[in-house]
Amino acid sequence: MQENAFDLITLGQKACEAKYELQALTTNQKNQALKGVAEALVTRCKEILEANDIDLAKGEAKGMHKGLLDRLRLTTDRIAAMSEGLMQIAELPDPVGEIMETFDRPNGLSISKVRVPLGVVGIIYESRPNVTADAFGLCFKTGNAVILKGGTDALHSNRAITNVIRDALKECNINSDAVQLIDSTDRAVTGAFMRLNQYVDVLIPRGGAGLIRAVVENSTIPVIETGTGNCHIYVDKYADMDMALRIIENAKTQRIGVCNACESLVVHRDIAAEFLPKLEVMLRSKEVEIRADEEACNIMLDCTQATEEDFGTEYLDYIISVKIVDSIKDAIDHINKYNTKHSEAIITKDLTRANLFTSRVDAACVYVNASTRFTDGFEFGFGAEIGISTQKLHARGPMGLKELTSYKYTILGDGQIRG
Amino acid sequence: MQENAFDLITLGQKACEAKYELQALTTNQKNQALKGVAEALVTRCKEILEANDIDLAKGEAKGMHKGLLDRLRLTTDRIAAMSEGLMQIAELPDPVGEIMETFDRPNGLSISKVRVPLGVVGIIYESRPNVTADAFGLCFKTGNAVILKGGTDALHSNRAITNVIRDALKECNINSDAVQLIDSTDRAVTGAFMRLNQYVDVLIPRGGAGLIRAVVENSTIPVIETGTGNCHIYVDKYADMDMALRIIENAKTQRIGVCNACESLVVHRDIAAEFLPKLEVMLRSKEVEIRADEEACNIMLDCTQATEEDFGTEYLDYIISVKIVDSIKDAIDHINKYNTKHSEAIITKDLTRANLFTSRVDAACVYVNASTRFTDGFEFGFGAEIGISTQKLHARGPMGLKELTSYKYTILGDGQIRG
Repeated sequence: MQENAFDLITLGQKACEAKYELQALTTNQKNQALKGVAEALVTRCKEILEANDIDLAKGEAKGMHKGLLDRLRLTTDRIAAMSEGLMQIAELPDPVGEIMETFDRPNGLSISKVRVPLGVVGIIYESRPNVTADAFGLCFKTGNAVILKGGTDALHSNRAITNVIRDALKECNINSDAVQLIDSTDRAVTGAFMRLNQYVDVLIPRGGAGLIRAVVENSTIPVIETGTGNCHIYVDKYADMDMALRIIENAKTQRIGVCNACESLVVHRDIAAEFLPKLEVMLRSKEVEIRADEEACNIMLDCTQATEEDFGTEYLDYIISVKIVDSIKDAIDHINKYNTKHSEAIITKDLTRANLFTSRVDAACVYVNASTRFTDGFEFGFGAEIGISTQKLHARGPMGLKELTSYKYTILGDGQIRG
Repeated sequence: MQENAFDLITLGQKACEAKYELQALTTNQKNQALKGVAEALVTRCKEILEANDIDLAKGEAKGMHKGLLDRLRLTTDRIAAMSEGLMQIAELPDPVGEIMETFDRPNGLSISKVRVPLGVVGIIYESRPNVTADAFGLCFKTGNAVILKGGTDALHSNRAITNVIRDALKECNINSDAVQLIDSTDRAVTGAFMRLNQYVDVLIPRGGAGLIRAVVENSTIPVIETGTGNCHIYVDKYADMDMALRIIENAKTQRIGVCNACESLVVHRDIAAEFLPKLEVMLRSKEVEIRADEEACNIMLDCTQATEEDFGTEYLDYIISVKIVDSIKDAIDHINKYNTKHSEAIITKDLTRANLFTSRVDAACVYVNASTRFTDGFEFGFGAEIGISTQKLHARGPMGLKELTSYKYTILGDGQIRG
């Protein structure tokens, strides 16, 4: 424990040293280094795959779930995709140094608000080794040093990837402490990392609800809460029902395990009798289990009665909850009660009702006549994504490069003193 | 304890109900209510003063420090100033509803980034009853419900002020839970409040270093760290020495107990022999104690040798530390090591060196040839201030109305689904 605590402090100090060097790099230097790392990942593909094989063998031996093994698995193609991701980040505009605002004061002070890196970013994530390269790339492009704590099951893979990145940075004469891996499987170290606020400016957990809750509960570092999405689609009485069915099919079933998938439907009473049977046919064809309130259960042939808990659950599975409401106001209240502030949608032809919904529903992204699945940095055109923020401080919704920056004020005077 | 915990949850639920109503208010409704509260504070001045008398008597009886008693004391004039402050907030532009950005995607989705309230803001502060009205005003104008936890010594005063505000809101048909006071002197309640992340979106501590540390260490609510300022002035070898003396006098002595006061000087070796004797004369005339490194002590007649601890100390007193450096790079390194990321200044006639300093020093506000005392929402022209952020997440430096808001994305489609 003592030794580990010491290690973390050294890690933090090295990250701080690196952050000052990174802040001074030009955009061109950063892009060249990103390209260098991208090439090195491909060139040294073999040693990454060998390390990954060790993780996979351990995972299989301990009976790891198939889905988790798939997330853990690297292939030549997947490493090429990681490399390509870094090349794409190199092509994106550099937000650092942007003059966001300038204003002069009556006393002659000239104030500029300048975009700067956050400093040191900590990222805690599950056993998905591709995140290692991705998180490095986004943080590096924005001039941040990054400390990574990946899932224990991916330790060998992460170690190999981090070594490749660090070597490639060294080749470019860049401080390789721009990226550091917490090379430990001790849970106490992860706990201590969350309290390293002396050195780390921001901590971003990427993963499931349990991981995020642990970080929120225990971190003394400012956290950006990401991920959990109990997303609703409200089918208004003025909905185009065919459109509603297409959007629900997409939002529920196109990819079930993601945070922007739809988990719950809210249906206006006036159309319930006509809409729900059609909905049932569509959902059955996709093998989606329906858990509905009593009234909806009476309309549909085959569904389970939903409990209070169902309405608050992010299934990430072929299950959906259904609630009938008397009014758009009740729909908004229901959603604000059960949602996780992620993504919510209304299907309606009535603009006034659409505006009421978008203004009153409390969520990062509120859709009118579109699938919640679009909540994504790439779909928003940011060219990159570090996560989807579900908190209101700093950034909300898809976070791209800009959201990995802060700002400072620089003030130019000629001797001003305060009266 | 159980009962208190229950009370906090009710408080949180009421704040959440109020936040939805506040988000729906027009700017005009908010401004009318602010004016109503401002008038009520003056009209009901007597009962506020009576409550304040109880706090003052208790404070005197327990031998409270004179300075603290002064901060606790309300007078007719001070209540008039609180009222005037609310009138000024009513005059400021309303940031809520601003369309910050709009962009269309190739698939036809039209995305708007809209400024919205944070939701529920918690504020923990010391025994300064004027903060009660001020914090309410800033949060209310930005459509946020606020939960206040003021210092125990000001409980009667805060209760009286909150009652006046709540009554005035009721008169305007506004949910009076827009402002709620944690009417308890139990420290365990304050601890539980910091963990009320289910209901509170942001927690802002306003006060000394100890209070802020306690909040950062214990809160599960996203925190905006404010306040602590170990501010430096670097006197470059190309400084106008007379300007440097004027700025140091102002930054150190115009008001000693504030976070933007100067606590430490860094002086380039090339001018130390000429500058330090002049500095000593000026500081002595203001009765400022000097704690300097060995070399500076050899130049000045009467100073104590500074310890490592001195360089890291926010004195908030008539004391200043002095360090001689060999280069601007050493000055930047020294400042980045010891500062609290608040406000730092360089005095130089050389623009290149000024630019190096502003780009490399890690602080919310970096000054060239001006006093650090200007780090203030009013001096920056924001018209208001909830605090000075020393963290990098969300807001940095002086926080005005805009910094009490978040944003949401509203996305208008015509049936788009994700491929």
